[in-house]
Amino acid sequence: MEVWRISLKDFSYSVGNTPPSWERLGGRGLIARILVDEVDPTCEPLGDNNKLIFSPGLLTGFMLSSCDRLSIGGKSPLTGGIKEANAGGTTGLKMSYLGIKTLIIEGIPEGSDWWIIHASKNGIRFEKANDLVGVGVYNTANALIKNFGNKIAISLIGQGGEMKMGAAGIQNLDKEKTPSRIAARGGLGAVMGSKRIKAIVFDSEGGEKPSLSNEIEFKNAQKEYTKALMAHPQTKIYADYGTNAMPSLSHPFGAIPTRNFSAGQFEDIEKINGDFMRDLLLSRGGESETTHACMPGCTIRCSNVYGGEDGKTIVSPLEYETVGLMGSNLGINDLDMIARLNYEVNDLGLDTIEIGAALGVAAEAGILEFGDGLRALEIIKEIKQGTALGRVIGNGAVVTGKVFGVTRIPAVKGQAMSAYEPRAIKGTGVTYATSPQGADHTAGLTIRAKVDHLDPSVQAEVSKKAQINMAGYDTLGACIFAGFGFASVPDVVRDLINARYDWHVENDFLQVIGKETIALEREFNKQAGFTKADDRIPEWMTKEPLPPNNSVFNVSKEDLDTIFDWI
Amino acid sequence: MEVWRISLKDFSYSVGNTPPSWERLGGRGLIARILVDEVDPTCEPLGDNNKLIFSPGLLTGFMLSSCDRLSIGGKSPLTGGIKEANAGGTTGLKMSYLGIKTLIIEGIPEGSDWWIIHASKNGIRFEKANDLVGVGVYNTANALIKNFGNKIAISLIGQGGEMKMGAAGIQNLDKEKTPSRIAARGGLGAVMGSKRIKAIVFDSEGGEKPSLSNEIEFKNAQKEYTKALMAHPQTKIYADYGTNAMPSLSHPFGAIPTRNFSAGQFEDIEKINGDFMRDLLLSRGGESETTHACMPGCTIRCSNVYGGEDGKTIVSPLEYETVGLMGSNLGINDLDMIARLNYEVNDLGLDTIEIGAALGVAAEAGILEFGDGLRALEIIKEIKQGTALGRVIGNGAVVTGKVFGVTRIPAVKGQAMSAYEPRAIKGTGVTYATSPQGADHTAGLTIRAKVDHLDPSVQAEVSKKAQINMAGYDTLGACIFAGFGFASVPDVVRDLINARYDWHVENDFLQVIGKETIALEREFNKQAGFTKADDRIPEWMTKEPLPPNNSVFNVSKEDLDTIFDWI
Repeated sequence: MEVWRISLKDFSYSVGNTPPSWERLGGRGLIARILVDEVDPTCEPLGDNNKLIFSPGLLTGFMLSSCDRLSIGGKSPLTGGIKEANAGGTTGLKMSYLGIKTLIIEGIPEGSDWWIIHASKNGIRFEKANDLVGVGVYNTANALIKNFGNKIAISLIGQGGEMKMGAAGIQNLDKEKTPSRIAARGGLGAVMGSKRIKAIVFDSEGGEKPSLSNEIEFKNAQKEYTKALMAHPQTKIYADYGTNAMPSLSHPFGAIPTRNFSAGQFEDIEKINGDFMRDLLLSRGGESETTHACMPGCTIRCSNVYGGEDGKTIVSPLEYETVGLMGSNLGINDLDMIARLNYEVNDLGLDTIEIGAALGVAAEAGILEFGDGLRALEIIKEIKQGTALGRVIGNGAVVTGKVFGVTRIPAVKGQAMSAYEPRAIKGTGVTYATSPQGADHTAGLTIRAKVDHLDPSVQAEVSKKAQINMAGYDTLGACIFAGFGFASVPDVVRDLINARYDWHVENDFLQVIGKETIALEREFNKQAGFTKADDRIPEWMTKEPLPPNNSVFNVSKEDLDTIFDWI
Repeated sequence: MEVWRISLKDFSYSVGNTPPSWERLGGRGLIARILVDEVDPTCEPLGDNNKLIFSPGLLTGFMLSSCDRLSIGGKSPLTGGIKEANAGGTTGLKMSYLGIKTLIIEGIPEGSDWWIIHASKNGIRFEKANDLVGVGVYNTANALIKNFGNKIAISLIGQGGEMKMGAAGIQNLDKEKTPSRIAARGGLGAVMGSKRIKAIVFDSEGGEKPSLSNEIEFKNAQKEYTKALMAHPQTKIYADYGTNAMPSLSHPFGAIPTRNFSAGQFEDIEKINGDFMRDLLLSRGGESETTHACMPGCTIRCSNVYGGEDGKTIVSPLEYETVGLMGSNLGINDLDMIARLNYEVNDLGLDTIEIGAALGVAAEAGILEFGDGLRALEIIKEIKQGTALGRVIGNGAVVTGKVFGVTRIPAVKGQAMSAYEPRAIKGTGVTYATSPQGADHTAGLTIRAKVDHLDPSVQAEVSKKAQINMAGYDTLGACIFAGFGFASVPDVVRDLINARYDWHVENDFLQVIGKETIALEREFNKQAGFTKADDRIPEWMTKEPLPPNNSVFNVSKEDLDTIFDWI
């Protein structure tokens, strides 16, 4: 696998070997390594010293169920620290077919033109994209497919990234060519926008599946893994309900964000949860699908297609985080409305978690009423127009709070929390507080741990384990749900890796790379100026009791400060 | 002198003795001590754990020329670190007549009412201020004088503070009862707004001048100091031209911010400098005054009254920092327009430096054209209205840059630079970078140092000396210009202090308290999460050459990191 490197300063590129210290990393871990090696942690995230990095995971390339994810990284304009965001879809797969271990994009082009980067077996070429400026993600993807053919993968930004908004992510095509698989968090779309790259097209024509060191062993391990995954009860649940099965877990715990994180249960939960959604989609039929794979070969198929009354697609997929942040968190009880909001935010190439949280903060300031979906749609239209209000919201919850004088902001390190209340699922609160990535459930969700989620004394250990495992999965290119399989047959990770690479890793490989990744990320953040003062849940959540448990976040500072003491 | 302490939680107050470790501090130094002793450095600046502190300087109370300043402090919502901002006017004097060494305001009141705090020899009482909400600083001051009599001092906020804007300061009456003496920087007006205090009225009826340990020695020292001050050539210049004498120094150095810090000289400098202004005001007559004292007893009288063509006051005073940030920095060459902008920003209770810098960043984003004063006025009107754009600008340069995707932001630690280009006066750049207060010329201006301002190798030493002295002066309650006198006869500081307090300090007292102050401030900031990564001039200023010198900021990181090694 090769290192592809683009310099936008002179539109040159190079293809080179992978340095030894990068060899055994991929995805999130490789991004951390490259950022520590090559990027000044104090640099301006939107300046020409930041780099935008695309790295498939170590296992990406084989349509192994839930294991073809792509990590994207750089210094975050939202958090000011290290950032990796990953996505499903087809980009990771196509990159691996081109033999790209990592694509590093450096510099900012002179002038004011916008660009498309085209990567294929013939190398890199650049095309102007000025006609796509101001065009949403869906139409941009269609135009690119029309232009470059049906077999490409695309990473692209919407108007949010063009306007360098802190909530801007990078969208990728799913296997039906819908550009909905977003590397959402931390503003990497703004980094791409700062470099005036509208899209990167990966044409794997002439490429091939990465080589395997031992094909038979790989197949055997794959079989064992897939079997374990299929046997896991959660797989069936996610296939039936998608990620929106989650309210059946989070709501009873009192952990679903409601009206800007002022309650943990929503009175209209039955109108937005997975049961309701499944019944609705089944009854509506048409283009609706209750189960759908975002990546080829996925056996979980937690994605869906949300169709309206007329059976036509409103958005695909509609996921729990969006239902939580743009539904209950905004007091909106209408799934059709949530789906419309989701579509519009997707089209702008923005993170629904960050935008939902920002709208919640704005509602607290009286900019909209909780429950008023039409007003929320209007505000999202303002984001597209680039009005002052639109740009405020597009820059996320913390900027919105600052501008409107709201202190009840649900964010850590500048990044909004996902749809798990840290006062009700305190282990996930520990993850929010201490993850080098800022508040993010995918950095270490603990809701399924068999502990009392309200007991502060046990959470650091639970979060630590989850964070290490997740950093490992993100380095493998494995989806958070791949863990349902890997957790049942943990040795399979070792077997897959050794069969893929002819390495001789032990069965703690997942934890080894997870720990290495977090250590690198902590190192970058330390140099960027982060301290333990940044590893905190917002003060108000330590004082304001959350109904219905009336709990506050009270994991000790000592626990937060010592969680990474193994580094 | 006593410690007055108000708890807004239950509207109680106490008057107590000064703890021994607070005795020998006043003003800025005492604020640092109190914040380190009592405020959690990680607290939410607009939350109920932050405190708002008013402390006259050690020498305040005697109408000693330029030495009656008041320091106001708290944790800054703009920088997230320690904040002291000081002001002239009459508040410090009246507080000292009431025997108040420091007034500490704690908590946030329940409910939604706004309040006036009334302090007198009878203690503290609270009155509702709901009828003054949304009223500008000038009308609020008039209403309070009408209500509470002509002999009061007032500290008050405008709509900016009510809206908890990061650029909101706290205004104080000058000796003509004009509420124009602003503790401007760092958003302390927002802290006052977060506590829903519209104004604090100090009625010194029945109070008296603080006691002197040795009146004769004090008078002798005062005489010597005043003589030295009067003899200094700069005193005459400031009496004639006000602080707007400064362009005659900064412009030749290529150090006046122009069009969002993109040049160091302004082609229309002759239309906005001190010569032009003086001639204009003399020819206009009427209420115009070229020299005016902000504090009773000041012999420098650097303030002025800027009258329009009809002789009526547009604003008082018009100062260099405003001319720099809202004039050349916005490409505006019309003093009448600058004066109007100044008046409107004053009325909102906002910092003209921060607002000027924010407008410069907004101009870079195309929100206004450079040179378009009427558009700038419109935007300031939007601040008053609390529109999204208005609130963005009111939150200062960094928020404005984030919202509009501009990276050329002239700020350090979240606070905008004053009207001295750090690439042309690099010692002041070192001050901007390293001061615990964030970018601020009053923390250590070096433009008068006899060094090559472009030579990076000598600046740390120059800045260090200036920062220590200024922290000392701010602790004494001495204006930056008092230094013209004290620098000529340094032993006078010792003599004044010993005659005032019956202490036995040495002639390095200024530096002793200056160093102690900075050490305390650094300690607070360290606990708040600041590191050397925060002690930096923005990256773009280290790369973009500034005309006409075509210099970049290139003082070494090592010099920046070791400047406080004596701590």
